[in-house]
Amino acid sequence: MEIAEIGEFGLIRHLTENIELKNPETKRGAGDDCAVMEFGEGRQVLVTTDLLMEGVHFDLQYVPLKHLGYKSAMVNLSDIYAMNGRPRQMTVSIALSKRFTVEDMEQFYEGLQLACDAHGCDIVGGDTSASLTGLAISITCIGDARKENVVYRDGAQATDLICVTGDLGAAYMGLQLLEREKAVFNSQIKNEKVKIKNDSEGGLEFQPDFAGKEYLLERQLKPEARKDIIEALAKEGIRPTAMMDISDGLSSELHHICSQSHTGCRIYEERIPLDYQTAVMAEELNMNVTTCALNGGEDYELLFTVPLTEHDHVAAIPGVKVIGHMTKPELGLLLVCRDGTEMELKAQGWNPLK
Amino acid sequence: MEIAEIGEFGLIRHLTENIELKNPETKRGAGDDCAVMEFGEGRQVLVTTDLLMEGVHFDLQYVPLKHLGYKSAMVNLSDIYAMNGRPRQMTVSIALSKRFTVEDMEQFYEGLQLACDAHGCDIVGGDTSASLTGLAISITCIGDARKENVVYRDGAQATDLICVTGDLGAAYMGLQLLEREKAVFNSQIKNEKVKIKNDSEGGLEFQPDFAGKEYLLERQLKPEARKDIIEALAKEGIRPTAMMDISDGLSSELHHICSQSHTGCRIYEERIPLDYQTAVMAEELNMNVTTCALNGGEDYELLFTVPLTEHDHVAAIPGVKVIGHMTKPELGLLLVCRDGTEMELKAQGWNPLK
Repeated sequence: MEIAEIGEFGLIRHLTENIELKNPETKRGAGDDCAVMEFGEGRQVLVTTDLLMEGVHFDLQYVPLKHLGYKSAMVNLSDIYAMNGRPRQMTVSIALSKRFTVEDMEQFYEGLQLACDAHGCDIVGGDTSASLTGLAISITCIGDARKENVVYRDGAQATDLICVTGDLGAAYMGLQLLEREKAVFNSQIKNEKVKIKNDSEGGLEFQPDFAGKEYLLERQLKPEARKDIIEALAKEGIRPTAMMDISDGLSSELHHICSQSHTGCRIYEERIPLDYQTAVMAEELNMNVTTCALNGGEDYELLFTVPLTEHDHVAAIPGVKVIGHMTKPELGLLLVCRDGTEMELKAQGWNPLK
Repeated sequence: MEIAEIGEFGLIRHLTENIELKNPETKRGAGDDCAVMEFGEGRQVLVTTDLLMEGVHFDLQYVPLKHLGYKSAMVNLSDIYAMNGRPRQMTVSIALSKRFTVEDMEQFYEGLQLACDAHGCDIVGGDTSASLTGLAISITCIGDARKENVVYRDGAQATDLICVTGDLGAAYMGLQLLEREKAVFNSQIKNEKVKIKNDSEGGLEFQPDFAGKEYLLERQLKPEARKDIIEALAKEGIRPTAMMDISDGLSSELHHICSQSHTGCRIYEERIPLDYQTAVMAEELNMNVTTCALNGGEDYELLFTVPLTEHDHVAAIPGVKVIGHMTKPELGLLLVCRDGTEMELKAQGWNPLK
């Protein structure tokens, strides 16, 4: 169905009419000038926002719209957890070019809703509009936390332990894999080796080679915000001294925490958690797997620091790994390599403006 | 200065380093995973968001970036007032194509800051990124109000008075004027009648004809959210039964309020507030001025309803005009024309997806 048939208000109504509000903090969702919420006494409100542009942040040639909706929500949920908060509400704005249909937007919302349901977050409004070019997505997520539980980036002390969750570099390897198969596909299209199937799916006779690399694809296309870790930390009674989520790469995030906490750090290459598939893919692409883990980005794992005294507690939480410790600022940011040599950690990160 | 020179984090730092936080509710601004705020007991939090796309919502050929920043903020502030709230915080996301410089973004932020300062709103974060094509702007505004003061669209009763602030249709006439002069300019460029001046301003030897129409331009390029009216209503102890801001046109907004309040309405053509310049411009363009006032949009005035008993109170507030009254839903939405005939109010509004 063409979106023009139902118009802006029709599309918004269609996409939002079945949304159920789950949080008692959400007083009113979509349908007025503002969404309305109310938080209990002693609670602080957390707000984060992300703007995702087609061709810069995502490539619709290989990202299904449902996955895009899921991931768009997830990257914002991750920022709320990174403050030790719980996500409560989300606003979703989309600008669409004419090539999108109502069904496309249903797919996008399905992914969005799946992510929000898994994290107890209400979709409370947004904006839908036209775009002359590609798809633009802007999501704002609102969360809350008891005042004394909010964790910033600036609270790390010089002797704190540095912890990361999950494993790193796999989402970046997934991106490389997708880009490689896209290049193969495009060159086959160019040489007319691929036929466009004339079926209802409009599919193509092309089978990308993802065998044995499913985990990398999942990490790139369907990242998971670490609600489980935030719950485990709360259960263990551990309040991190500083925390953020790893979206631009471990190196870049360590620079943020060290700079804001006025510390240095020392992490150990052998302690950086890697998945087997990440290592295999890096090998295939002739890349250094540690570099990928340090600078790849899009992991959406948590990086946090805890006092030295919490070592046994924190090391016992499944999915958490201690990778090093904070130091005095004058000692700099160092990576201790497998052979014992020390290297300065460079914040390459991901600079979309370069 | 090229934005690539300072990168994403550099640009954000540059644009946000001088931002002062003014509200005691704002606990942390830009620089962490989330902004943090805390509202007093009994207060509700209001959230609104808008996504503005180049070529759809604004035309940089005639909108200066400073005005664009100002207006982008204002349309969101207006939504907070439309709930009878006070704006407190704002997040600002921008996606930029390569043609923008650091100075361009300074201009944009200058306008943004000017609007926020005038309305006591803190800029607390956002996202800055690249765009393959035009400029995309996403703003989320957060406000608050005492729980019992929040005004929705669904509270109007069948006998309530309908009020609007300011005058209507001028912003739309301003847009027509700018489009007309743009067309003149472009045709002169095409016919090589305009020379590009070789001075530091990079200006053009073209003088658009805006004489006597300054008010229309101001309404289009520099709208003002009606903080003054919200304050006056509070001072008079009047709580509207329903309220929204007029962004898509009076007709469209009346449809929203009537539909959500389950009422009809009857408004009087002769009561619709118009500026003299709006009438003159409509005449020049051979348009019906009432149609412009009903469907023009971008007025950012307030439309609200009050109980009949408040008539004298509300009519005494400068800038407020009673234009009709609500009715039972079965009576429909009617415009009583100057000659006494009745017409059905159609919600043409502005449909960017059509």
